[in-house]
Amino acid sequence: MDYYALPIANLIEQFSKLPGIGKKTAQRLAFYILEMEPLEAEKLAAAITNAKEKVHLCSKCCNLTDKELCNICSDDRRDESIICVVEGAKDIIAMERTREYKGLYHVLHGVISPMANIGPDEIKIKELLNRIQDDGVKEVILATNPTVEGEATALYIAKLLKPFGVKTTRIAHGIPVGGDLDYLDEITLSKALENRREL
Amino acid sequence: MDYYALPIANLIEQFSKLPGIGKKTAQRLAFYILEMEPLEAEKLAAAITNAKEKVHLCSKCCNLTDKELCNICSDDRRDESIICVVEGAKDIIAMERTREYKGLYHVLHGVISPMANIGPDEIKIKELLNRIQDDGVKEVILATNPTVEGEATALYIAKLLKPFGVKTTRIAHGIPVGGDLDYLDEITLSKALENRREL
Repeated sequence: MDYYALPIANLIEQFSKLPGIGKKTAQRLAFYILEMEPLEAEKLAAAITNAKEKVHLCSKCCNLTDKELCNICSDDRRDESIICVVEGAKDIIAMERTREYKGLYHVLHGVISPMANIGPDEIKIKELLNRIQDDGVKEVILATNPTVEGEATALYIAKLLKPFGVKTTRIAHGIPVGGDLDYLDEITLSKALENRREL
Repeated sequence: MDYYALPIANLIEQFSKLPGIGKKTAQRLAFYILEMEPLEAEKLAAAITNAKEKVHLCSKCCNLTDKELCNICSDDRRDESIICVVEGAKDIIAMERTREYKGLYHVLHGVISPMANIGPDEIKIKELLNRIQDDGVKEVILATNPTVEGEATALYIAKLLKPFGVKTTRIAHGIPVGGDLDYLDEITLSKALENRREL
């Protein structure tokens, strides 16, 4: 649209590349930025540049960090004998919110997905195996998402871990707390039945 | 939350200052940026900096532009005798989409709002009056939003324009095309009745 000045059109275009940001939202954000205090806008631009420059993968668990080891790996109160394997760094935040888990993590940065041309070598599986060999790991919890790819990746890793003789577990499927049987999909419900526990 | 590295926490904070971006969305955007190609992220940061540096107000109509005059003011096919007064630069885009209006604009950059401590001097009313005096303006269309503040601002400007003897009009209120009487609020409906036209 030629009624936008070029720097505005460019800002809208860049915003609309972000996930969940449509053309209308991108326009709203761009105009908001244009009416912001210059210092505030500069802070946002600097935060983007700074995060890209400083943040890299933790040399141990592949979590995102600005140090050599991430906050969790460098915390000596954590139980080093358990590793929880997750798809993305975001999933660590979700796990931490439970305040239940006190072990370490391993971030795969993706799942095996032949459809998207992502094989086992494209994600951080090798790094996980190296950790199992070196450290005194007793249990690996596979906490990939309950999608087709997430399940396949969990099974693939479980198979690789077999020779190490380490205990390998998968997070449970079932009815979410507060959920309603009536609204639940049949696969979740049959998993919940299958994994029933004696009281 | 101390499980985020500082540059990530900062990026999330900056994103969550944007309108309509909650904590969850800010987190999603931040992690997306961290996983983006560095060049793409740099483009977004540069677009913000560049827009803030280059974009200023059109010296004539106060639209946002990177030149002395905005695209519309510098287009000599536009009818200089009509000025459409709008609240924000975004509203110009909405008006232009109609492809009906061929006159010029004037952007107030706000509305008079005693509640928010915005008086007539805080918005670009003086600049509008200067244009009326100088140019051969025949009509001023007041296209502020149909809110309490928008109406009050339109009435205030109309009063100021009286002595200039220039035709002053207000965009019509009524039933939106495709709207349903049953779902329409009573104020719009009574305005639609009041402004009925003979066929």
